[in-house]
Amino acid sequence: MGFFSRDIENMDDLFVHTLRDIYYTEQKIVRSLPTMIEKAMNPQLREGFERHLAETRNHVRRLERVFDMQGVERSTVNCPAIDGIIKEADEVAGEVKVEDNQVLDAALIAAAQSVEHYEIARYGALISWAKQLCRDDCAAILHETLEEEKATDKALTEIAESQVNAEAAASR
Amino acid sequence: MGFFSRDIENMDDLFVHTLRDIYYTEQKIVRSLPTMIEKAMNPQLREGFERHLAETRNHVRRLERVFDMQGVERSTVNCPAIDGIIKEADEVAGEVKVEDNQVLDAALIAAAQSVEHYEIARYGALISWAKQLCRDDCAAILHETLEEEKATDKALTEIAESQVNAEAAASR
Repeated sequence: MGFFSRDIENMDDLFVHTLRDIYYTEQKIVRSLPTMIEKAMNPQLREGFERHLAETRNHVRRLERVFDMQGVERSTVNCPAIDGIIKEADEVAGEVKVEDNQVLDAALIAAAQSVEHYEIARYGALISWAKQLCRDDCAAILHETLEEEKATDKALTEIAESQVNAEAAASR
Repeated sequence: MGFFSRDIENMDDLFVHTLRDIYYTEQKIVRSLPTMIEKAMNPQLREGFERHLAETRNHVRRLERVFDMQGVERSTVNCPAIDGIIKEADEVAGEVKVEDNQVLDAALIAAAQSVEHYEIARYGALISWAKQLCRDDCAAILHETLEEEKATDKALTEIAESQVNAEAAASR
């Protein structure tokens, strides 16, 4: 896809393009979460990431249902946004001294919340467009995922504020 | 900054690193918003972007106050996340057919909301860490910006759902 292709002619096209963007995103998250699980020291954080990996696999399947309901090919488009968000997460994690695992946990939570917020923005737009296009059936499926992304973001805040941040600050 | 530098030794370092990340982000948004203002067709959307440009310049100044309060150099770190989010916004905007301005407005709103959500995630983490580091003064300043980012996100949803999406869907 590039600047001169002008592939988006109407709102249906924009909806499908963004569906392919988030399909790429969810698949990338499925590939990235195992590394985050491996790096996380706090048991509740590790469990949270594991639960979210299972959820994310289900988000991929839900998107496939929406592609089928729309009658369009299940395919991805490049998504420089999620590539950048995950690259930044890797870089920051790489800069934390190996022995400072509590600080690394705090960095991992912040990185995961950036991912969640990207998804919350994307699903929010998709749901709003689906409703406008009279596809309340697609909107309902996408809404299930949005609620799970929001719940994950909230759970990460709770783990950070009840445990990880205090441990990380104490490791000064 | 790279994988082997291991510059982050404690939570103070993580806080300052993330402050530099969002300092880069806010400056990049100041440079990007004029193009979005130019592309936007809906007058309310254009006004909203203009108002947010003024706010964003103030966010930069607030961050400079926080750097000074922390007694650290006002500097940036590379932020592949915001680079990717803005690259994607440019690409999607470039793919919309020139005459479909309503569809472009819908795409611009979605792109701007991805930026807002990235900032909401980053400021959320910074505030939480500032409090943990007993810097409630820094947290209070960052909180003012967070509230403005959330309000901008909400205002964009309202413009989309009350005007832009219906116009974009009608342009099929």
